Formats: sequence, C-alpha cells, structure tokens
Amino acid sequence: MVTDSVVEPSLLHRSLHEKPILVDSAKGSYLYLSNEKRIIDGCGGAAVVSVGHSNEQVIADIHKQLQTVSYVHTLVYSTSPSEELANLILEGNPGGLCRAFFCSSGSEANESALKLSRQYFYEKGETQRVNYISRNLSFHGNCLGGMSLSGHVARRRPFEDIIPDNFHRVSAANSYRGKKEGESDEIYVSRLALELDAKFQELGSDTIIGFVAEPIVGASLGSMTAPGGYFKAMREVCDKYGALLIFDEVMCGSGRTGTFFAWEQENVVPDIVSIGKALGGGYGPVAGILIHQKIVNVLKKNSGCFNSGHTYQAHPISCAGALSVQKIIKKQNLLENVRKMGAKLGQMLHLELDDHPYVGDIRGRGLFWGIEFVNDKQTKEPFDPSLSFGNKVKDAIFNLGCAVYPGCGTVDGVKGDHILISPSFDITGEMIEEIVSIVKQGIVEASKSITN
Amino acid sequence: MVTDSVVEPSLLHRSLHEKPILVDSAKGSYLYLSNEKRIIDGCGGAAVVSVGHSNEQVIADIHKQLQTVSYVHTLVYSTSPSEELANLILEGNPGGLCRAFFCSSGSEANESALKLSRQYFYEKGETQRVNYISRNLSFHGNCLGGMSLSGHVARRRPFEDIIPDNFHRVSAANSYRGKKEGESDEIYVSRLALELDAKFQELGSDTIIGFVAEPIVGASLGSMTAPGGYFKAMREVCDKYGALLIFDEVMCGSGRTGTFFAWEQENVVPDIVSIGKALGGGYGPVAGILIHQKIVNVLKKNSGCFNSGHTYQAHPISCAGALSVQKIIKKQNLLENVRKMGAKLGQMLHLELDDHPYVGDIRGRGLFWGIEFVNDKQTKEPFDPSLSFGNKVKDAIFNLGCAVYPGCGTVDGVKGDHILISPSFDITGEMIEEIVSIVKQGIVEASKSITN
Repeated sequence: MVTDSVVEPSLLHRSLHEKPILVDSAKGSYLYLSNEKRIIDGCGGAAVVSVGHSNEQVIADIHKQLQTVSYVHTLVYSTSPSEELANLILEGNPGGLCRAFFCSSGSEANESALKLSRQYFYEKGETQRVNYISRNLSFHGNCLGGMSLSGHVARRRPFEDIIPDNFHRVSAANSYRGKKEGESDEIYVSRLALELDAKFQELGSDTIIGFVAEPIVGASLGSMTAPGGYFKAMREVCDKYGALLIFDEVMCGSGRTGTFFAWEQENVVPDIVSIGKALGGGYGPVAGILIHQKIVNVLKKNSGCFNSGHTYQAHPISCAGALSVQKIIKKQNLLENVRKMGAKLGQMLHLELDDHPYVGDIRGRGLFWGIEFVNDKQTKEPFDPSLSFGNKVKDAIFNLGCAVYPGCGTVDGVKGDHILISPSFDITGEMIEEIVSIVKQGIVEASKSITN
Repeated sequence: MVTDSVVEPSLLHRSLHEKPILVDSAKGSYLYLSNEKRIIDGCGGAAVVSVGHSNEQVIADIHKQLQTVSYVHTLVYSTSPSEELANLILEGNPGGLCRAFFCSSGSEANESALKLSRQYFYEKGETQRVNYISRNLSFHGNCLGGMSLSGHVARRRPFEDIIPDNFHRVSAANSYRGKKEGESDEIYVSRLALELDAKFQELGSDTIIGFVAEPIVGASLGSMTAPGGYFKAMREVCDKYGALLIFDEVMCGSGRTGTFFAWEQENVVPDIVSIGKALGGGYGPVAGILIHQKIVNVLKKNSGCFNSGHTYQAHPISCAGALSVQKIIKKQNLLENVRKMGAKLGQMLHLELDDHPYVGDIRGRGLFWGIEFVNDKQTKEPFDPSLSFGNKVKDAIFNLGCAVYPGCGTVDGVKGDHILISPSFDITGEMIEEIVSIVKQGIVEASKSITN
C-alpha cells in the first residue's frame, strides 16, 4: 500500500480529490496534454488568452526584458515596459481616463478600485461615504473586498460571516431571467434604475462610494450583456447622488468583446475601470485599474498619492508581456477579428443550438459567449445542481478535444449551469466552426447521459 | 507652455508630484539608471532580490518555460514548474506543512490565509469563529483583508471607516520600545502572552479564527525580531483556545533570515504560513501559502477544496522563475551565505553606527537588518515626522550610490523612522563593507542637514 505522503501532491490543486491534467506545451489555440492528447483551447483558460499560446514575438519581447531588468521597486524606480503599456492603453485619454495602475491580478485590481474610490471621497471630505453597491450574480475577485462585492453565492458561503456590512447588492441586469413577461428593455431598465435609486436612498444617498458592475457579466452569469440603455441609466443614478461608477472589465474588457473597453459599446464612461486577463494574454500575472482625471485631480490637490501599492506593482516582466500582447493586437488589427469571428461564433451557436431542448439561452458579444442550460425550455427550470450538468457538458466537450469554461449557480447562485466560450483573438473561422461543432456534439452527449 | 496632458505620465506613480527614476538595466547587485549612475542594491527592492538581478540561469529557465506553456487554468490543468516548486519547498513536510498554494503577491497570499483559516473552522462546524487578531505596527498587504489585519496607521488612515470590525490587534513584540525599564525577556513575553489571552477573552475565546504575525516585522517596524520564547508563548495561547497560528513570512521568510522559514529559528510551527518576495527573487509576481496537514485533513473530509482561487494561481512562468531561484539557492548553498554575510552585516552596522547620536536601535537577522533613528538616544524620542528623516537618510545613501528601503511611523504609526538593509543572498563580504560604509556616510550627511 502506498501511503498518503507518497501519492499526494505538494501543490494544492483546485480539488483535494481529483488531480488536474498536466499540460506539456501549448501553441496558438492548442494545448498538448501529457497524455498526448491535443485540445483546442475554446476558452483561453478563463478568457485570458488573446494572441494565442507561445506567441514567438511575446516570448522574444519578454526574453529581451529579462535580459535588462526584471524587478525594481516602484517607490523609487520605474521601467520602460510599464510606462509604455500605460501610454499605449491610455493614448488620447479615452473617456477622460488618464492614469494606469498595474498590479498582478484582477482581484488586486478590484481591491485597488475599492480603495481608490474610498480615498477619493476621503480626500474630498465626503468621509461619510462608506458603502459600495454591486449586483447579484457578479464576480469581482477573491480577495476580501472583491469577494464582498461579489454576488456569487457559492464562492461567498463559508465567508458570509466575515464579510463586512458595507457591501450591498441590487439585481443583475438579466434579460433572460430578470425581465418580466412581455416587458420591454426600456421598462426593464427603468425598473432596475429605480431599484438602484431605492438602494441609494435606503443606505443614505450620500453614503455610497460607488456602484460596481461588469459591463458583461462573466464567470458568474455566463457572458450576460445588459439591455440597451442600462448602464446609461445606472450612471445617471450614480451622478444624481455623486457616487462613482466603477466598471470591472477584468474578464469582458481589453478587447474581448471587440473594442478595447467593453464600455465603449455602452456609451458610458466609468470613473475607474479594472482590467486584466486578455490584457496580458496569460504571459504573466498582470492586471490594473485605469483612473479618470477627476479622481487624479482630487488626489493631486491633497495627498498626492494613491495610498496603496504592491511589491510587484508595474512588474517589468509582466508589463513587457502585456505590452507585447497589446502591440500585436494593434498591429494585426485583432479587434476586427474579434468582432468578425465573434459575430460568426454567435450566429453559429444560435444556428446549431437554439433548438436544443436543454439550451435555454445563448448570449454574448465579441469572442465572449455563454450558453445557459435548462431542464425545461419553457419554464426555464434549471437542472438539479446535484447533476452538475454544466460540468458534464464541459467534460464531454473536453473528451471530444475542446476546452470550454464551465460555471454553475447561474440562476440564483446555487442552481443553474452555463459554459463560456472565449477563444483567442486570432482565432480563425475554421476553428470557430470546429469549436461549435464539438460544443454541439458535447451538449448532445451530456444530454444523453442524464436522460438515459 | 507645455500642457498637463503632454508632460504627465500615463502610469500612476507612487507620487503624483515626483517622477521615479528610470532603470535601464540591472545585473547582480547593481542597478544601472537612465542617468548612467550605478547603484548598489542594498535592499533588493522590498527585500525581494535573492539571487541577484538578471541571473542568467533564471533567465534561461524562464525562457525555456515560455517556449512550452505560459498559461493554463488550474481548474482543469497543471504544469510542472508549479508542481516541482511545491515539492521542493515542502520536501519532507516541514513542521507538518503539506500543501502549497501559489498566487501572485504577498497581499493575495495573506487574503488566502485569512480565507482558508475561516473555511477550516466553517467546515469543522465552529462557525462562530469570525475574529482575527494581529499586532500593532504590522503590515500584511494592501488588499482589504490584509490591510484590515495591518497595524500600519498611515496605510490604513483613509480606509479606517471601511475596515470590517472583526479585525483586532494586540501590542507588537518590540524589545526596543515595548519592554519596560529593566524588564527581562521572560517577563516581557509573559506580559504579551497575557495581553493576547485577555484579547481572546474580551472577544470571546471561541470566536477567534487565528493570530497573525510576522516572525520578524518588516516594512512597518524595521526588521524587528521577537524576544526569545515569544512565539512559543503566543502558540500556547492559540492552542489553549483552539485558534490557528498564521505566520506572515512574505518579507522575512524564504531564506531571508538564514533558514527557509523564519519560524525554524523560533521553534514554533504555524498552521498556515504565507511566503513571497525572496521566493521568486523578483523574476515574476509570485507568492503563496503553505498549509498544515491538519487543515488539509478537514477540507478533505468536507468540501474537498479551498473555496478560493485565482486566474493566475500557480502561474507557469512565475513558478518557473521561483523554481529556478530556489534551485540556485539550494545548489549554491546561499542560505549559508545569508547567515555568514548576515552576521557580518549585523556586526559591522553595530560597530560603525551604535555610537551615532541619531541611531536608536540596530536589529535584524540574516540579510534583514533595520536601523531605527531617534532624535534623542536616551529618551528614544523620534524625529518630528515633518522632517522625514528616514527619507533624508535614504536619499543621502542613494546619492552616494546605494539603495536602502525606508520606513516611517516606526514608533506609533506616525512618528519614527527606519531604514531596511536586505541585499541579495549572494552578496559578498566586500559589498557588505561597501554598503555599510555608504550607509554610515549617508546617515552622517543626513544628520548634518537637520542640525545645520
């Protein structure tokens, strides 16, 4: 008998019972597993990969940076990759955003957004502003602040009793499940605006720091886009009470939906926006927040600094990787490919899967699409969570050679299943066809397994 | 006239008024600035650099990993660098620590420690445990949880009103300022143990999740070691009430003080320990927590997973860099050099600076030394914070060609100044001499500037 200490890994895996699959190498949109299987990367991890795996230009650029300087502390020094990355992203100060703060994860980025927004009001003298409002079925990271914002029931459960009481939530904008029978987008949006307004008033309208939302909800709601005019209406409520609008674009931004900022397609500019994932394309842990001039102005006149920072803030290697990725996206005009291939992906998913009895809803934008599963198409009744239908679909698709990103709790944080499809920005039409074909086949097979 | 938008950088620097210095390259223990100046790196950023800058072996190992796989999501996959790094660190399960969770910063690591410790009690059914106890003048990171733990007054100030109320603090173990006149270590330690015990009882002894401490306090207290027996006494209080002992070794661990774990020199094993900085030596954003078997056992029997995670968890490139760094430290037996050069550094600092009228205390261990400044050696009265004496010293030393890491608020979070000296593990005796010589000269010059 082999003892535990021999067979057990030292690395804490996501599950203590199941072992992950070892990946030997990755190239373009393919992963090569240690069991010699080849997988089409249909989700780029968690919507991270943007210029494919093992991109030679990115590797060369990181290698070059490694040979000059890998790390210095930002208390005293700066390095060119972080300066250039900030300049590239903020060229022309889009929407008035004028400063970039780079850190190492979307979680850190959202913590930074929380802290900066509080500091802004603290320095303005509006110290009574202590409350944040976010939305149900959202996900904003796994540090304490972001988790407190997140309306992701399963990820919060063990921690509910240690979550601070100044984090509040309103309904998600969910056209599939939140809209009433026959309700127009306009009416739905005004209902949601009233709900946010009521929440402001309930908490004390001058006590709110900001409203935090993903323009397109990722992991928790399966690429849910908001109805037209929704964010404009939310912005108006924030403006009415002098609160900030904070967008979490860690998953949906940095080009994922066809424009660098997801908010460009909503005609609303946030005061702070967090970015990550596709920003660096996976080559290094990198994320950040972009800050509006109005916030910078207040800090400039007062403390003169953002009272937060990290050892690996603006890390030269992570920033060199992200800079290389963003240059490739610009040079190869990959956002056009995102729009074109995204449209094709959406059309094909609708064409192939709209009629499937377990496919409740297909939604998304750019290369960011979600499929929500239901047990009953008419009533929208989800599957019993014990069936793990989403995971079954993910596994069936994986066994057929394609990776998609699963999610559960889509309905209420407990019930509901979806998968996300979010390939690299340089995906080809042929591969889109292959992905959709495998996804369809996987859904059919997983469906058989539960009806047998 | 040049307008703001032209001269202002897009990168958010630590100060909105001062520009950082551009570093062109770094090699070994030297930084080469864009103004052609060469700086001896006497602090490795924030005690990060462990095998020097631009180490060729590390660069080669990272480059090799870049050519195979740079990113996959840990929900499904794993890669060899993260597995190997965990195996290397946890070989022989030191003190019963048996699992490593890797993330991208010390802040994330401490958030993970907070969440894991809560989840442990949640799954054990001790759901009433919601309180954390840490110490004054500590620093545990800049995300909401770690900041709430931190007893770092200046970094907390704008955020005090958004900090949750389940974070509590006791006194730091500070032999320089906390010990009473003529008090023995033993009496001091038992006084601190009684204080912790009283805090447990005040909060409800069965409501405490854990006591969190840096074995050697870094940025906030200037490399303050604890009196002998202190951590053993704290462990006993935790054990008495069934709470966990969590060590934050982000700054003082991973070899910085001459043993891989700082706790090895305290004869006390923590239940969770966070690591970072020297772990990866700066080549990539990497940190982590190491988890005791007793916690893993509870999770195994219940949820089967740590209910937290990150997109860049166990990042292949960051882990490949850290693995390379740790292999070099082992192969070259650099921890012996840390002990030897650390002893030399301590001796020389005492020899050269003990008599300086503004040097109040010199303390540290391994290659982690702090100098605390005072206006009056007898009364230990610090300088007026408006003098920024610590920064003046840092600047004087920098102008003489050496980098040290400054800190303020050393006395009470507002008053007090110190500098940290924490060079790379492969530092030579000659360079130690040069660093001490410049540090001395810098202190003398900064002193002149305030007495004139």
